[in-house]
Amino acid sequence: MEGMMYKWFDAASGWMVVFIIGVLTGLVAGIVEIGAKWLIDVREGYCGEGWFLDKEACCWSNSTIIAQDYCSNWLRWSDLLVGTDNKMVKYAINYFCYICIGTSFAMLTVIFVMVIAPYASGSGIPEVKTILSGFIIRGYLGLSTLMTKSVGLVLCVASGLSLGKEGPMVHVACCIGNVFVRLFPKFTKNEARKREVLSAAAAAGVSVAFGAPLGGVLFSLEEVSYYFPHKTLWRSFFCAMVASVVLQSLNPYSTGQSALFYIEYDYAWHFFELIPFVILGCVGGILGAFFIKCNIFWCIKRKTSKLGHHPFIEVAVVALVTALISFVNPFTRKSTAGLIKELFSVCEWEDNSDLCDYSYSEKYNNGTAQSSNIAWGAPNARLKTAIWELVMAAVVKSVITVFTFGLKVPAGLFIPSLAVGGCIGRVMGELVQYITYLNRESSFLQGICPDMSVCTLTGLYAMVGAAAVLSGVTRMTVSLVVIMFELTGGITYIVPIMVAVMTAKWVGDFITPNGIYDAHIEINGYPYLDGKERFMHTSMCEDVCKTKKVKELKTIDANSVTVQDLEILLETTMYHGFPIVSDDQLNIVIGYVSRNDLIRALKCARDKHIDLVNASRVYFTDGLMRSNAGGGPISVSLGKVVNHDPICIEPKTPLAHTIDMFTKLGVSQVLITNRGKLKGIITRKDVLRHIDYLKTTDNGHNLF
Amino acid sequence: MEGMMYKWFDAASGWMVVFIIGVLTGLVAGIVEIGAKWLIDVREGYCGEGWFLDKEACCWSNSTIIAQDYCSNWLRWSDLLVGTDNKMVKYAINYFCYICIGTSFAMLTVIFVMVIAPYASGSGIPEVKTILSGFIIRGYLGLSTLMTKSVGLVLCVASGLSLGKEGPMVHVACCIGNVFVRLFPKFTKNEARKREVLSAAAAAGVSVAFGAPLGGVLFSLEEVSYYFPHKTLWRSFFCAMVASVVLQSLNPYSTGQSALFYIEYDYAWHFFELIPFVILGCVGGILGAFFIKCNIFWCIKRKTSKLGHHPFIEVAVVALVTALISFVNPFTRKSTAGLIKELFSVCEWEDNSDLCDYSYSEKYNNGTAQSSNIAWGAPNARLKTAIWELVMAAVVKSVITVFTFGLKVPAGLFIPSLAVGGCIGRVMGELVQYITYLNRESSFLQGICPDMSVCTLTGLYAMVGAAAVLSGVTRMTVSLVVIMFELTGGITYIVPIMVAVMTAKWVGDFITPNGIYDAHIEINGYPYLDGKERFMHTSMCEDVCKTKKVKELKTIDANSVTVQDLEILLETTMYHGFPIVSDDQLNIVIGYVSRNDLIRALKCARDKHIDLVNASRVYFTDGLMRSNAGGGPISVSLGKVVNHDPICIEPKTPLAHTIDMFTKLGVSQVLITNRGKLKGIITRKDVLRHIDYLKTTDNGHNLF
Repeated sequence: MEGMMYKWFDAASGWMVVFIIGVLTGLVAGIVEIGAKWLIDVREGYCGEGWFLDKEACCWSNSTIIAQDYCSNWLRWSDLLVGTDNKMVKYAINYFCYICIGTSFAMLTVIFVMVIAPYASGSGIPEVKTILSGFIIRGYLGLSTLMTKSVGLVLCVASGLSLGKEGPMVHVACCIGNVFVRLFPKFTKNEARKREVLSAAAAAGVSVAFGAPLGGVLFSLEEVSYYFPHKTLWRSFFCAMVASVVLQSLNPYSTGQSALFYIEYDYAWHFFELIPFVILGCVGGILGAFFIKCNIFWCIKRKTSKLGHHPFIEVAVVALVTALISFVNPFTRKSTAGLIKELFSVCEWEDNSDLCDYSYSEKYNNGTAQSSNIAWGAPNARLKTAIWELVMAAVVKSVITVFTFGLKVPAGLFIPSLAVGGCIGRVMGELVQYITYLNRESSFLQGICPDMSVCTLTGLYAMVGAAAVLSGVTRMTVSLVVIMFELTGGITYIVPIMVAVMTAKWVGDFITPNGIYDAHIEINGYPYLDGKERFMHTSMCEDVCKTKKVKELKTIDANSVTVQDLEILLETTMYHGFPIVSDDQLNIVIGYVSRNDLIRALKCARDKHIDLVNASRVYFTDGLMRSNAGGGPISVSLGKVVNHDPICIEPKTPLAHTIDMFTKLGVSQVLITNRGKLKGIITRKDVLRHIDYLKTTDNGHNLF
Repeated sequence: MEGMMYKWFDAASGWMVVFIIGVLTGLVAGIVEIGAKWLIDVREGYCGEGWFLDKEACCWSNSTIIAQDYCSNWLRWSDLLVGTDNKMVKYAINYFCYICIGTSFAMLTVIFVMVIAPYASGSGIPEVKTILSGFIIRGYLGLSTLMTKSVGLVLCVASGLSLGKEGPMVHVACCIGNVFVRLFPKFTKNEARKREVLSAAAAAGVSVAFGAPLGGVLFSLEEVSYYFPHKTLWRSFFCAMVASVVLQSLNPYSTGQSALFYIEYDYAWHFFELIPFVILGCVGGILGAFFIKCNIFWCIKRKTSKLGHHPFIEVAVVALVTALISFVNPFTRKSTAGLIKELFSVCEWEDNSDLCDYSYSEKYNNGTAQSSNIAWGAPNARLKTAIWELVMAAVVKSVITVFTFGLKVPAGLFIPSLAVGGCIGRVMGELVQYITYLNRESSFLQGICPDMSVCTLTGLYAMVGAAAVLSGVTRMTVSLVVIMFELTGGITYIVPIMVAVMTAKWVGDFITPNGIYDAHIEINGYPYLDGKERFMHTSMCEDVCKTKKVKELKTIDANSVTVQDLEILLETTMYHGFPIVSDDQLNIVIGYVSRNDLIRALKCARDKHIDLVNASRVYFTDGLMRSNAGGGPISVSLGKVVNHDPICIEPKTPLAHTIDMFTKLGVSQVLITNRGKLKGIITRKDVLRHIDYLKTTDNGHNLF
């Protein structure tokens, strides 16, 4: 009965904690979204009816709509300057304001980050991955990081820097998870259970970033989490769902659609198109790998040169250059999300935008051919210009993002990658469409798309290209396909996207083995032990011991240790834990105690028992305090904090097995014993150092 | 360089094998689908233009369509009887043919199954789960099972028995996986890698069964697979995708939609509706648990009574009764998939079916209220009758399915569960809609659904009910939500479905702890060690040794063993493996060899070296054959087949840790050592036996 109650309470509190995290993540995401939307518009002007309204809300009330994205209530900065109608002057003023406001937002962000929480910079995904693998970075998921990252995210998205808020949302969600899990002491006591909550929070982060709850769960499973039991799967899904519902009820996108880049069309794709899709995959893989190489090169340069000492100036310069360049190209001037939305859509018949400037031959305009409702034909002048602008936008965005990712501001890679890929894909799509247009009378195409209906959807190519580049950069697979599918609602196009993603991953893996997150983990030197790769060396555990930095082994002798001994041990060493042995000569392992547990237990014993003296004996068997019968100082039992069954392995155990134990059982150290006698201890870091050592000294002999 | 090549080939062959499995699964599923569709129609009549055409294909050609599902080319059996126009006689003839043909299909199936492959019966999911957890059931995934199950599936789906082909498709896919993985020797050698391939095949099975590739992957991850590394995730997705594309290109559903029960509508749901959704969840959970109890009771009865000796008669009786009862109710007479499709759809204005027989008040018929295009209002006579028929259909289907699941025919539970749940949900929906209709003028409802537009979608309630009952029966969670969502394409309704599924699972778990698959694993006594449950006992490994059935420990003494010793050991014992010890007195463990490896290695040595005699010494260190320098018989080294690093644990290790090792590291036995000396051996079965023992003797003291 008690066990039943315990189980119930256990389950209920687990659900409650993920519910709270989901709600808060949804709320924070909504606030960030609304704030960023407003500040993005502030770069262009302000609302006459109330300065706190964004353009859409401002134009919503009954005012005259002048242009597609402009209305009489909305005042551009140039409208403040009454008296002149000179268009050039107005353009210059708007240009100037756009740059100044954007750059000042960026500078404000970097000040926040540097002064309050340095951990708020970057995307945070490499660090979250490392933390979920069992490494602790103190303060990385703290309240101040949460606040700074949320506010900084609003500002730096609005600054016009080439970055997205999607990656950082994962970090923000994990911060929320880490802060609010403290309400439930059960989870804070147990690191493994806390990490399960963080996995769920990461899913919620992606869920709100893209409106993709399912993609979030798979992202957490595939990319972020180290250990993902079934219960976590279900809780992550719940958490992601709650966050998504809360965000939708705030309705920041004001569309009523849950998908961020919802596409309206649902036409078939053709098997011959797999060829351009594979080509897009290759381009995405190459571009992604090249991006990683450049970005890593620049990050190392930043770390090792003077550049790293002046993050403020660096951000200001990058923001200024970004604003200067972005304003001149209509595709880079608009918000990146808006750009992606435009690229993913197809041309309807009435569409008058630059990307839809086709010259239709009369034959296809009339008659029954218009059943598909999609415009196509030979490109006109405006479309030709737009294609060049798209190419330029892709180049500019790629180059700028190399310098942006790694700045001391919150910065995600998803949206810039999608934008670059979308531009490339759309250009490719126009090309393929033009080719099919030229050959529209051929029997092959007549067989596939009869009645001269459109054969290729340019928007689909943009989607495929976006997925390919994102896959090349992050090397995500299943989760990326699902995210793309939830982003667009295009279940029909899951195969093209999958083909491109797979090609991009394979091509990318061929050039650089790691995705951007793993590459950043590596240059930052985090002790991340990859459970995905099969370890191919014949090294044994004893080899690891040989390459250890610190070879001295500090043990606790269970038969003779006193309180003072332990306190001296804690003071003189910095080890994270100590093996407990039965006898100094034989060194038989009887347990293991972690540093933190030992400190806490000793403090507790000192507080409780004022008659505890330095010479008091410490026992590590279970049981309560016992006073010494002989009249000497009382003794204390710390059996409760001891792990009586540490993982012990033989020195000849292959390292591959040991890595399995680290990754699958989630332990952070193993003891090396020979017939029960302690020979050494290996930690996760020792294994990583040994792998590094093998890499540098590798002459091919160890590979089989 | 060699390692690189090895890695590449390794990866490529892995992809190739899942590609082949995906293609074949898609093909088999297409054939089963087309065959079943035709045979279902054969029960009603045949095509005048060609007996091999099904009704749809027959009516496709330019013939007069007489009724909704009837055309002049299609001849009912009663049409053969010329000369009479008596409707009663015709009805009787059709009734008779329907029953006879259906029952004979069922009897044919049971003959196939009993004669060719007894393993082809049932859903196969419990067995696949057990196999993937590491247990071997020889022949369960063989070629004869594959053939029998595929053919039997066509027949028994067409027989009209209350069963689905979805569960068995998972078994069929795993058979395909198991048979064709033999093309790649690498996978057959290594059981763990073979199981990874089978996981991918299971995903492909669900993918083709529901047209839900993503749901398939999650089903494999959540429900079937034991161990699911990242690489398997991606390969499963690929396999599921390929299978789904192949099936779609065969186009057996003839709709062009990839979703089986594609819904056309996309209207919002309201928060107040969560109350009926939760109620549906409770009903689903209770019904599911009750179903499990009844079904298990009946299965045990079948096993322990004479009933089990006459499967042929049992199937015939159940088929006859099913056909007799099903024909009279229009909802049970039609194919179950057709029923579900009808239940999930909503009533359009022009719809004239029984389920849409509303009396509209004039006020809502005219004016602007019809923006939603959905019919609703007070139920008319036909709808009232239909509701009673739905209730009867739910009752009849539930009761019959209890007796059907467990027959000696291939039988899945998904479709019957969805149908029962759909009926209940639809009835609930009509109820809620009527309530909202009565209170349509209230300010609360006016605030939510203004302009008298429809407030509740009855089709959505059917979907939610279907998901709830399926969740109650199988206890699936995330994968079920995803499957429902892929089945219907209704991304808008993911929250209602999720709420119902969660409620159903919680309620169901409260009544019976296990889903139907786990319950069947238990009554069949398969050694399945559940990795999902947290083990709550304080038992230690030595306690397991005490409850072992066979306590004798057979070891191999590495210092003195001869070929003959080993052969006698293999003949006299049936153990699956033997620990190798260094010395009979000290019993120091130096390795472990599995029975199969030992047999193969000895046979190989005997074949290769004709001078090998009974007295030849066997060494277990690495290295090749060495001849004895002293002139005695040559010796042989079997070091290659020995696992030199078996998992060894101390006797005092908590059982919970040991279970972790079994489930997470995938080992099938651990050696108990004390300071290196062998004390015993524990297998997965020993642990399961011990857990059973604890359950029966549990007095609450062991729980904490």
